[in-house]
This record gives sequence, C-alpha cells and structure tokens, in this order.
Amino acid sequence: MPVVTFQPSGRTASVDQGTELLDAAKLANVEIATPCGGKGTCGNCLVRIVSGEVDSNSTDILAETKGKDAYVQACRTKVLDTPVTANIPEQVEIKEGKSTDAYVDASLIRKELFPKSSQLAPLAFKIYTEVPEPQPEDGFSDVDRLTRSLQSECGKKEFIYSLPVIRSLADMLRDKEGKVTATLVSQPGQYQVINVEPGDSTSRQLGIAVDLGTTTVSVLLVDQSIDKIMAIRADYNAQIKCGLDIISRINYANRADRMEELRLLALKTINRMIKQVSDDTTVRPEEISNAVISGNTTMIHLLLGLNPEYIRLEPYTPTIFEVPYLSANETGIDIHPGSLIYISPAVGSYVGGDIGAGLLCTDLSTDTDQVNLFIDIGTNGEIVVGNSEFLMTCACSAGPAFEGGGIDAGMRAAHGAIERVEVDKATGSVTCSTIGDVSPTGICGTGMISLLANLFQTGWIDPAGKINRTKKSPNITFSGRQAFYTIVPEEETSTSKPIVISESELANIIRAKAAIYSACCLMLDQIGIGFDDIANVYIAGGFGRYLDLQASIIIGLIPDLPPERFQYIGNASLMGSYMLLLSNEFKTKQLNLAKRMTYIDLSKYPEYMDQYTAAQFLPHTDLSNFPTVQAMMKEN
Amino acid sequence: MPVVTFQPSGRTASVDQGTELLDAAKLANVEIATPCGGKGTCGNCLVRIVSGEVDSNSTDILAETKGKDAYVQACRTKVLDTPVTANIPEQVEIKEGKSTDAYVDASLIRKELFPKSSQLAPLAFKIYTEVPEPQPEDGFSDVDRLTRSLQSECGKKEFIYSLPVIRSLADMLRDKEGKVTATLVSQPGQYQVINVEPGDSTSRQLGIAVDLGTTTVSVLLVDQSIDKIMAIRADYNAQIKCGLDIISRINYANRADRMEELRLLALKTINRMIKQVSDDTTVRPEEISNAVISGNTTMIHLLLGLNPEYIRLEPYTPTIFEVPYLSANETGIDIHPGSLIYISPAVGSYVGGDIGAGLLCTDLSTDTDQVNLFIDIGTNGEIVVGNSEFLMTCACSAGPAFEGGGIDAGMRAAHGAIERVEVDKATGSVTCSTIGDVSPTGICGTGMISLLANLFQTGWIDPAGKINRTKKSPNITFSGRQAFYTIVPEEETSTSKPIVISESELANIIRAKAAIYSACCLMLDQIGIGFDDIANVYIAGGFGRYLDLQASIIIGLIPDLPPERFQYIGNASLMGSYMLLLSNEFKTKQLNLAKRMTYIDLSKYPEYMDQYTAAQFLPHTDLSNFPTVQAMMKEN
Repeated sequence: MPVVTFQPSGRTASVDQGTELLDAAKLANVEIATPCGGKGTCGNCLVRIVSGEVDSNSTDILAETKGKDAYVQACRTKVLDTPVTANIPEQVEIKEGKSTDAYVDASLIRKELFPKSSQLAPLAFKIYTEVPEPQPEDGFSDVDRLTRSLQSECGKKEFIYSLPVIRSLADMLRDKEGKVTATLVSQPGQYQVINVEPGDSTSRQLGIAVDLGTTTVSVLLVDQSIDKIMAIRADYNAQIKCGLDIISRINYANRADRMEELRLLALKTINRMIKQVSDDTTVRPEEISNAVISGNTTMIHLLLGLNPEYIRLEPYTPTIFEVPYLSANETGIDIHPGSLIYISPAVGSYVGGDIGAGLLCTDLSTDTDQVNLFIDIGTNGEIVVGNSEFLMTCACSAGPAFEGGGIDAGMRAAHGAIERVEVDKATGSVTCSTIGDVSPTGICGTGMISLLANLFQTGWIDPAGKINRTKKSPNITFSGRQAFYTIVPEEETSTSKPIVISESELANIIRAKAAIYSACCLMLDQIGIGFDDIANVYIAGGFGRYLDLQASIIIGLIPDLPPERFQYIGNASLMGSYMLLLSNEFKTKQLNLAKRMTYIDLSKYPEYMDQYTAAQFLPHTDLSNFPTVQAMMKEN
Repeated sequence: MPVVTFQPSGRTASVDQGTELLDAAKLANVEIATPCGGKGTCGNCLVRIVSGEVDSNSTDILAETKGKDAYVQACRTKVLDTPVTANIPEQVEIKEGKSTDAYVDASLIRKELFPKSSQLAPLAFKIYTEVPEPQPEDGFSDVDRLTRSLQSECGKKEFIYSLPVIRSLADMLRDKEGKVTATLVSQPGQYQVINVEPGDSTSRQLGIAVDLGTTTVSVLLVDQSIDKIMAIRADYNAQIKCGLDIISRINYANRADRMEELRLLALKTINRMIKQVSDDTTVRPEEISNAVISGNTTMIHLLLGLNPEYIRLEPYTPTIFEVPYLSANETGIDIHPGSLIYISPAVGSYVGGDIGAGLLCTDLSTDTDQVNLFIDIGTNGEIVVGNSEFLMTCACSAGPAFEGGGIDAGMRAAHGAIERVEVDKATGSVTCSTIGDVSPTGICGTGMISLLANLFQTGWIDPAGKINRTKKSPNITFSGRQAFYTIVPEEETSTSKPIVISESELANIIRAKAAIYSACCLMLDQIGIGFDDIANVYIAGGFGRYLDLQASIIIGLIPDLPPERFQYIGNASLMGSYMLLLSNEFKTKQLNLAKRMTYIDLSKYPEYMDQYTAAQFLPHTDLSNFPTVQAMMKEN
C-alpha cells in the first residue's frame, strides 16, 4: 500500500490505491478543513504535492493539478500506487477552537421570559423510600419488595425496571437498611425505574438542556429540584471542519463512514461540554437523569446517525420529525445511561426543533391575536410569524458569519470577543469594547454588526460594503484588488496577530443579514401584511450578550421599527430546552406549535432571489423602509 | 509480579501476590474443573507444586499443603512473591464436551401434547406494506409515511420505532419502491417496530425456544408463520466447569468477575447453539425476532448478570421472579438486536420458570379435578402436584448424574450414548443399544437407569448398590476397596477407552433417584394423599429419548403404579417454551400457574432427610410401596 506523508507535521498513512487524499489525511491524524463538506467547491483543502504522483480532478481555479509542486484539492485527488508527500499550507490545518473558554453569560437565560409553569414536572424524577428487609415465607423478590415500597409512595401503578437497575438491586436493597432513591419516568399506566441509588438523594435532581447548533453548541446544567442553573457552556460544534453550513454537512455525509464521523463529532462536542459543566460544579455526569436537546433537523439527523441526504433532495423528506424518547445509552450521550432523551420535534426539513423550543419563550406560544415575529439568527436562519390563528415559518441559509464562522477574525461571543466598536470618522481608527474587558482575541456577531454600522455611518464603507478608497487611513491596507480593515493592531491583541476584516468578509456579513431580512419580507408579503403590523419582534441567536438595535437597523438586519417593539432573547433554543427540562407540560405545547406551523419553502418563490439581491445593500436598496436610517444618512 | 507456570501445557501468567492459583490458571488460559464452585469442598482442583512457594489453606484430605511436590487445592492456594510452577494432573484439565454433536431427537417435541391454541400469536410478528413515494408539500417524514402505511394494515394505533429501525428507513423506503416488511410487537395502545426489512419476508417468521438447564442447554428454531420446527440442538452448559450444581455455581459467583464469567459462559453456550441451529438451516441469526428462555431461577439470574448470592442465604430472596421483556441487545443474545426476550417467570428461589413452562404441556395447567403429579428430573429436580384447586411444588438437588454429569462415562442423550442394556445373569456381560446404532461413546441417563435395574435384577449388585463380590465376572474389577463394572471393553468403544462405572458412581445415581422419589413422598404426605390417588404422572427431563418405565420402577425412581398412568414428556421446559413462542396466550396461563403455586421448602422438613435415607436402596427400604418389584425379587 502506498504511503502518504503530510508536511509540515511529517505524519504518514499507508492507504489503498484510489484513496482520497482527504481520507489519507484523516488516517494520518492530520486535519484539513473542508468547509464545503468535501464537495470540491470551496477550495479550502488545497494541498501542494511535494513528491509522488496523484490522480486529481480538482475544480478549484487555484488548483494546478499536474506535476510536482501542483496544488490540488485533497477532496478531489486520489492516491496512485506510489508514495506521495503532500504539503498542507498553514491556513488549511485546523487550529483548536479559538474560543473554548468557559465564558458564557448566564444572564442570557432570562427567566422572566418563562411563562409561569404550574409546577416543576421533569420527565424523570426522584422518589425516596425505605424497603423493609426480606421476610421468610413472604415470597417476594427484591424487585417485588422495591415495587411495594414505591407503590406506597406513588400509587398502585406498574413499575418496569431496566436491566442495569435490576442488576443493582440485590446489594443496593441490603446496604443502608433498604434506604434508596429511585429515579422514575411516568408513562401511561406505569412507571419506568431508570436508576436506584443508595440513601436519600432527592435533594439533587439534575438535567441538561442542549442547543445543538450548526456552528455553536450550548449546554446548561440545571438542578431541577430547585430550578437552579448550575453551569452553562458554549463551544463550536466540532463538525464545522466538515462543512460550515447545513448543505455542506449533508454533502460531507454522503458516505456511511463520514456520516458516522459527523455523528461522533456531534457527540464529542456535547459530551465534552457535559463533562465541563459537571466539572464546573461537583456533579458526576451519571447523576444527570434528564436531557432535552434542540437543534435543526439536519443536526438532529446527524446526531442520531440518520442519513440526511433526502433533506437536501426534493421533496426534502427527512427521516423523522418527532423523535421518540431514546435512552442516553443508545444515543451515546454521556449522562446516566438509562435516562430518556427528549429531542424537540421538528417542523420541517429546514425548520427544526430549536425553533419550536425558542417559541416557548415568546408570545407566539400564547393565544394572542397580535401578530408577532420571531427571528432566530443562526447559520440556518429561521423565521416564524403569526398569532393564535396562524403560524408561518421559513428558513434561510445565513451562513455562520454572526457566530464567527467563515470570518478569519470571527469568534463566538466569549471572553476576548469584541462586542462593540466606535470608528473615528476622521482617522478611521477603532475603539473596541471586549467581553471580559481583556485584550481582544477576535470579533463576535454583535461586534460585527456594530463594526458594519459604524463603518457605514462614518463613511468608511459605502452602501455596497466596499471600503472607501478615496480616503486614507492607517487602518486600511490593500492586497491585490481587495481591501482590508484593521480593527485592532497586532500589538494590542491577545494573540499578537492583528484583528483584520476583509472586504469579502464584510460582504459575507451583508449576505447573512440580507438572507434574514429578505426572508422576513417574503413571509409578510405572503400573508399580506407589513412590518408595521407586527406587535413584537423577538430576535434570537447566540451572537452576543445583547443586540445593538440601532446598529442592526442601520445595516438592515432588522426592520426599522420603534425600539420598544424589539426583544432580544439570546439563545432561545437553549432557553426553550431549559423550560422543556423543567416541565413536561411544555412538551405538549411545543408539539402543538410544531403541528400548527405552516412551512414556506423559500426556494419555491422566485421573488425571494429579488428580495435577497435588493437587501444586499446597507441598509437596503429601498430606503423607504428605513426612514430613520435615511434621515441619519442625510445628516451625515 | 510473580510468574506462575502451569505444566504440562507450559502456559504462564504474571499475577499479583495473593492471587488464587485458580485465577492464575484462568489468566494463563488453563482450565481447571471446579465442580464445587471453588469452595474447597470437592478436591477436584488439586494441583502439584513443582517449584516455588505458595500459601495454601487446602481442606481436601488428599492435599499435602507443605513443601515442593505438595498437592494443594488451586481454589484455596495463593501465590506469594516468588515464581511458582504447578503441575495439573491430567484428570483435572477439562476436556471439550464429549457429546457436542448435533444429535437431538426432534420427536421428543410431541406436539400432540400441546393444548389447541386458538391461533398463532407470537410476541413479534411481521406485516408487509407498500409505502408510497414522498410527495412535495405532504409534509411527511419517512417515519410518518411508514406509520401511515402500517396503520392502514393494523389500525390506528401509535407506532414506536427503535433507533436502529429509524436509521434504516431513509434508504429502505426508497429501495424496492417502498415495499417493506415490518416486525411489530403489540403493546397496550401501541406497536413497537423492532425491524424493517426490504421486500416481502412475511413467509418466514423465526423464533427460538431455549431451555437453560444447569447441566444441559437446548435450543429450538421455529418458523412461527407455519409452526414448523426447523432445527434443534442440545449441549452442555459451558458453566459446568465452574460447578456441577446450582449451589456450586452460586458459590463460584461470589466475586463480580466470576459472576460476569458465568454470565458470559451461559451466553456463549446459548449463542453457539443459535449459530448451530441457524447453520443447520439457511437462517441468519439476525432474522430471528422472537425468543423464549426458560430456566431455573439461578440460571436466569446468572444469564442476566444478577447476583445469585441471596438465593442461597435465608430467607432465599432472589432479585426477580418475573423478568420484564428485555431486548436481545441488552441481554447479549445473538438474534435480531431489537427482539424482545421473554423469560419464563419463576415460582420460587428453587422452582424456576422451566417448571411453569413444563406444566403447560400437562393436565396440571387445565381445570381438572384429578390430582396429577409432574416430576422434572434434572440437576435441580422439581416436582409439582395438584389440580385446578391447588398446586404445590418443591425442588430437590438430584445432581447431574442423569444428564451424564459427575459420572466418568456419563454423557448426554446424543449419538453414541448407551440408552439400554441387558446384563447376562450368569456371566455379567452386557449387551448395549446405542443412540444412532454406532459404537458406544458413553452412557446417558436412560442407559444408567437400565443398567442399574438390570444389575440389580440379575443380582450383580445388591439393594445398597454394592457390586456382588461373591460372584466372578470378567466385567468386574477392583481398585483398592472400590469395585468397577466394565459396561463396554475398550476394543468396542468409539474412543478406544473402556466404558466403566464405579461403585461410587452407582451410589451417585442412587442418590439422585432417592432425592426425587423422597421429595415426591414428602409432598404427598403434606397433602395427605398417596401415590394411588394420582391420576397421571408426567415425567420430564432431558436424560433420554424415552423412559424405561419398568426399569425406573425397579430402581425406585418413580412410584410403582400401572404403566398407563405415566407419561414421559421429555424436555418439558423446552416444549413449554416452544408453546410460549407460538402464542402469547400461554404467557398469561403460565403467569397464573406461577402465581397459584405454593412452594414447599424441603429443608424446613426434618422428615425429608429420613425419607431420603430410606430411598437410598433399590428400590427402597420399604418394599411395600413397590409390590411389583417385590414380586420380581421373589421370583429371582
């Protein structure tokens, strides 16, 4: 088998003839980013052939596919029967996440938004009981004895025990004089006993809420006995190296081994964060017996090992919307293995359970007549509009820009992220506010919105997002035809590298905001109402601690409405998951919401493309919808 | 760590100081038989210390526990901090089973004994359906589409899918134009979908019935769609090297690793036979979607990894009597992993689900007024007496003699087993009938009954089972104080070793029959009836193809009643399991039987010991209960 050597690490792999260089790299434990999912379209996996021959079918214009020192796309190049040495340009090798620190602001979980729950009623709950000693001639087994004790606490239902619980009983019921705490799940006509612990542990009943995003994953650890948030973590989804957006991930998953790879990457991300929130407190992961996971339909498919291919192909039929309760053990989530995992039901192929969860914290889940608008700004942007009589929803691909993806200096809203800037109109210099008041590491979503608005307001960029070439500033540099804006010079950053944004990255952000805004417009057009008819606009997303409303309006991300109509509710999917964790009653509510929603497939509306194109300006080509911005522009 | 070397194999193991020689042997992959379960009582694990020092606490009188060349019990000897070489005498090393061939007589499954079942109604059953293609705008997922198709076949119940089934759907529903066969389990208000296969496979619905005996394990492969036995196998339980009877196994299981070892040995035995019955036909084990397992309470505990310790200790409380449905996957049974395993419910600590299964093929499960007696002759002998108004049951330790255990020439009722003998009164020579009409390999249970009766009838042994020392025969030899009876000389056997039985082995058989008979007597005494009041005696057991009634009466194994009152029903536990496999209605019946039975603990009755002692003669010390034998003895 030919040996492939990767420089600069020098790692090698022996592979079969015909193996893709991308797979050879994986075997050699060398990571190569494939933001397009290995489909040959992004060109990010270019490697240089130092020696040996390969069979390349590269499509990228930068690739030179013949001879030594040719650049080829690793995803479209196969090993022949000779040894190969390939050099991976520095930028292609994936760095560990830039922002894996613990910083997440728990204040983003705003309990005041929760509807009052009649009571704490989690799926799994604990009951303490004391089981009397076995008596001669009573003819009871250990299971019988525990059942009788539990029946005296919970009533005469049937109790069904899992095999691991049955295995633990012989010794458990004889230690500590039969004092045990059982964790039960209530089912029609019966209780499932998923765990039995020695002594009384009812004072601690733990659960986790998970928002599984395309780019960012968040985990919340909750003590359900007292409704207390114990820890919160957010980090990048380890799948991003296999594609930045949903379609890229689906493309990457076109082979069984890659589908399995994506499944394990999602699990790895979630489980690492479960470990982190456990370590942050004094919890052992196996003490956690409730979990709610919300995510878009593709993320949930990948997490469960379901083939996502048909989500991408007409008529866009996923395997499942409403996932049955699955055990932690069979899903691979590292909490108590007998725990049942609740997965928020999806609405459509591109409107996932994260939206249903998010709506729980808004008036869209109440029976109001007022029409409300819910905008979840994520890599997959999702929008819901409606009231108690109708609910319409759609999804658009905004890309990961607001979460720091696809932007060289981009990062999650974590310690060291620039979240607000002020640009000097005269010099073009920038003053930054950073999360945690530390030296900046990168820029998060709210920072980008602030930057874009400021650059536009001060005239350093034009409505098309092009950097002003008529004025000079030390912050502006050029490379070829592209201009770059230095936000923070290298001597002031935590990484000793400058924080710079390019014109094409600015265009990325503008495309993201355009996708969101134009999707809102199309939805309202379909219903025949305007933004003025909207009572409340709920904006959700994990891109920062707050939303700079004025800046968001200036760039045309959100409609130009009075500030009191907006509510920024942060990671609504995570908050909704938290509510689902606390009480089963929200599950019924969420399921009804999911069933009531009508899904609009934007790709079926040719006018969406026109709307999208018109929105790729700051704030928009049609300024009449942005009167306050128009007024501001006139002032300048 | 000191190294232990075992001769003659030369295998070694590095072990911690303080490790038992028995565990060291296991690590070195050297098998040492421990019929007593490693409790130090049987002396079968004697090994000779060739070099090195050990810390021995041997109890066996044959052990010499000091110095080089000392014999020690491996189960009571610990390694010190120096290397040790131990020699394992030939007889201690376990040979592979003598009779692992495929021979089992399917005629022993006597369907004429089955009560008429109203219909074939197995737990898991197949439904064929054709799922229409996904349509744009219908908003159905793959799961929804299959559910709608299945609902049109089975009605509007809820359908719950297992994760592996959900994983298979995306491709399965798109191959073969949506033609699929689903395997369903009916549950209150819902169906569980445990498997989906492409195309129409309803013509083959496979299940296995398993009798998990202490000594012998039997597996039956059935096509439930047409009620056809496809294959049958029986073999020794691989656990026997860890103890011959239930108490020895429980003793052996006194450490978690040994409990796990016993669990894996039971699984290995069952799974090897599942593989065999599959290979015997053209079945893949994963096509099998139903399983019923019946066994005594201890065997079921060991199979499921439940600590059996408290079965042995007063007040004899097992972990469980009525095991919930468990998946094949979680139990480790190698059939379709989503299959649900039904385990026959136990009656008491020493009366297992095998008895409840066995009763299903007798009139004891009907509502007759006649009092019937059921005797299951196994290593653990179990007896039930009663009618529609009462059912009493007890268990006695008969030992494995009738299944060939503990008898040097003993074997299961398989090819090459002597099943009937005729002893010449004058010369003492023996004429044998062998299963399969081949050269004999050993002697099975029915052969031993025939031999014992013949030797007694012809005067070659006395009522105490002692070989007649006053007559000379070339078949009789002596070694020390013990006499041996050669059944077949070495030149006539398949193994070129003579088939010989010793006086102490004859005593083993007599003890076994005495345990059974005296237990029957005690039960009837408690009820206040005699054998004459019994309408039918059902004799079950896996010791042969038939029961030689006359011989059994002559040795006093069964009461001296007219032949028409007896029915030999072979492996009743296996037959009952087969019935349970065919129709769920028998499960309700079995559960009711189990609940109706009153368990008598023989150890609580001092008179049982007297009865047992009195029964250790041929046929019995009290000849008045054996009038036909008495008459025969007078004739001689």
